[in-house]
Amino acid sequence: MESKYKEAGVDIQAGNEAVRRIIPLARMTQKEGLSGSIGGFGGVFRLGSLFKRPVLVAGADGVGTKLRIAFMMGVHHTVGIDCVAMNVNDVVVQGAAPLFFLDYIACGSLSPDVIERIVSGVARGCIESGCVLLGGETAEMPGHYPPGEYDLAGFAVGGCEEDELLEPASVRPGDVVIGLASSGLHSNGYSLARRVLLTRMSVETYVPELGSTLGEAMLTPTRIYVKTVLEARHLLRSAAHITGGGFFENIPRALPPGTGVKLERKAIQVLPIFRLIQEMGAVDEREMFHVFNMGIGMVLVAPAQHADVVVSISERHGVAASVIGDVVASDGGVELC
Amino acid sequence: MESKYKEAGVDIQAGNEAVRRIIPLARMTQKEGLSGSIGGFGGVFRLGSLFKRPVLVAGADGVGTKLRIAFMMGVHHTVGIDCVAMNVNDVVVQGAAPLFFLDYIACGSLSPDVIERIVSGVARGCIESGCVLLGGETAEMPGHYPPGEYDLAGFAVGGCEEDELLEPASVRPGDVVIGLASSGLHSNGYSLARRVLLTRMSVETYVPELGSTLGEAMLTPTRIYVKTVLEARHLLRSAAHITGGGFFENIPRALPPGTGVKLERKAIQVLPIFRLIQEMGAVDEREMFHVFNMGIGMVLVAPAQHADVVVSISERHGVAASVIGDVVASDGGVELC
Repeated sequence: MESKYKEAGVDIQAGNEAVRRIIPLARMTQKEGLSGSIGGFGGVFRLGSLFKRPVLVAGADGVGTKLRIAFMMGVHHTVGIDCVAMNVNDVVVQGAAPLFFLDYIACGSLSPDVIERIVSGVARGCIESGCVLLGGETAEMPGHYPPGEYDLAGFAVGGCEEDELLEPASVRPGDVVIGLASSGLHSNGYSLARRVLLTRMSVETYVPELGSTLGEAMLTPTRIYVKTVLEARHLLRSAAHITGGGFFENIPRALPPGTGVKLERKAIQVLPIFRLIQEMGAVDEREMFHVFNMGIGMVLVAPAQHADVVVSISERHGVAASVIGDVVASDGGVELC
Repeated sequence: MESKYKEAGVDIQAGNEAVRRIIPLARMTQKEGLSGSIGGFGGVFRLGSLFKRPVLVAGADGVGTKLRIAFMMGVHHTVGIDCVAMNVNDVVVQGAAPLFFLDYIACGSLSPDVIERIVSGVARGCIESGCVLLGGETAEMPGHYPPGEYDLAGFAVGGCEEDELLEPASVRPGDVVIGLASSGLHSNGYSLARRVLLTRMSVETYVPELGSTLGEAMLTPTRIYVKTVLEARHLLRSAAHITGGGFFENIPRALPPGTGVKLERKAIQVLPIFRLIQEMGAVDEREMFHVFNMGIGMVLVAPAQHADVVVSISERHGVAASVIGDVVASDGGVELC
């Protein structure tokens, strides 16, 4: 019997095949002490007595138009890492340890092979951030997405005790601002980056300043800062994930009213990809800092006496870190000088 | 100063305006005893001592190509309700009470007005299912979505005690299967429904059998079964949300190995919209039950002696319910006779 649903563009068998391939990837993320199970309508996570009075922190985010670089390159696992990174970084800046993650993949025509590659990256991101891949949705939406294209979003839930929450209210003038190095563009500003770079070069163009092809540089996965932030958590006042909106919109989210930060422009190691965009696109520097992370993917605020220890924790996890400025009494802005 | 980012299709001001309009909608979902706060990088939910040994149940789901009906009609709030419904129904069938919800909206060109209408439906769905709208992501992805189009997905987290989980393993032959009436197509099978119906009629066509235009019938929001399931929870063995895959793929998810269900075809009140699709599309009845809910949006499995009480709980919440079959010792299939 012919299936009318398949004629209409939805292949239930391909969907089932994708699920069959995802399950072992999700299993790889299971770990002792965190009990998650998939296969039901919802994923089940036994919080049990992990926390005395649990506070949950949840974030939702996607990968944005970085996906279009993945389409051009035919490389689909790195955006899976990005999807987890963008979410767990949002969760950990509030002081919570990522517990579980769910993904949402929507596509025009379901390829079990592409789905498997995306989810292999998702699983890798989950393992690196210590959370369980608890479930997700793979939706085949013919006519909504062109064949070969998809959207990818995710959702992370973390947990901590009340007194482990990083509270912007605790920040004081005189605290220092520590910048943790990013791996590149992360997953923000791609509409501008694509417009500037891909109208002048192709993803295959080798760019000496980047030491790689443009495509490789643009697909570099977003760095996951979970280990550093959790290990340094007791030394921190607050933290900011430099996500959409760059320095100017994200750093103030880690500050209480009446304070701002004064950053030393010279202390910020701007990565070559950002210099390339700025020069080729003739983008004003202020706008660059408003759209991109510029080389600093995460900002930690700590009392000055803890700065050295925090920096060394980050470096031990393989992420360059340095003091890039300090907190001042002001109107809440970010000053670059 | 002109913004290069805006030239590239991303309007940060429109994004901020959308957020400004979303916040009061999210506030409307706050309720006593559930403490959620938004505005940080992640939404914070204080679980505190709500449960002794909390089990969390999480689901991710989207609205599928039902969105295309919303685009055609220019009506955007009902899909917001759908998005919550699809997720909380997945969570509550496992016995968990929905605690919080996050949405993901991705669009080609951000209209604060459309976003506000979508989220007003999301907020309404959250209120009806007793959960807090804790956060979300609104992504402007020029070139990825055509102007005026978007995708919409969501994530729900519920909680319960270990012994409140509805466990398929507890189901026994002789238990009864209770069907709760759906409101229409809910959010599944739209690729087939669109292909059959919209190639023959337009969304404006008045269809006497439906008592409305085709578009109105196709946009009817997915029913939320949270209140009924939570009130009947202590009387139930398990439950199945009739979502993608219809009867044949979802009912077995509520059953242990070695059992199946025998459903009385005559006891299932097939809604007019499904008869229309079946006749116009010459779709085999078996495939209809494999793709659509056919008029039964949720199936509850209970010991026979509790059937009447469960039915009356559902009816008290305004949802028609009846025994449609029973559990038998078999190979796990769904038999329609």
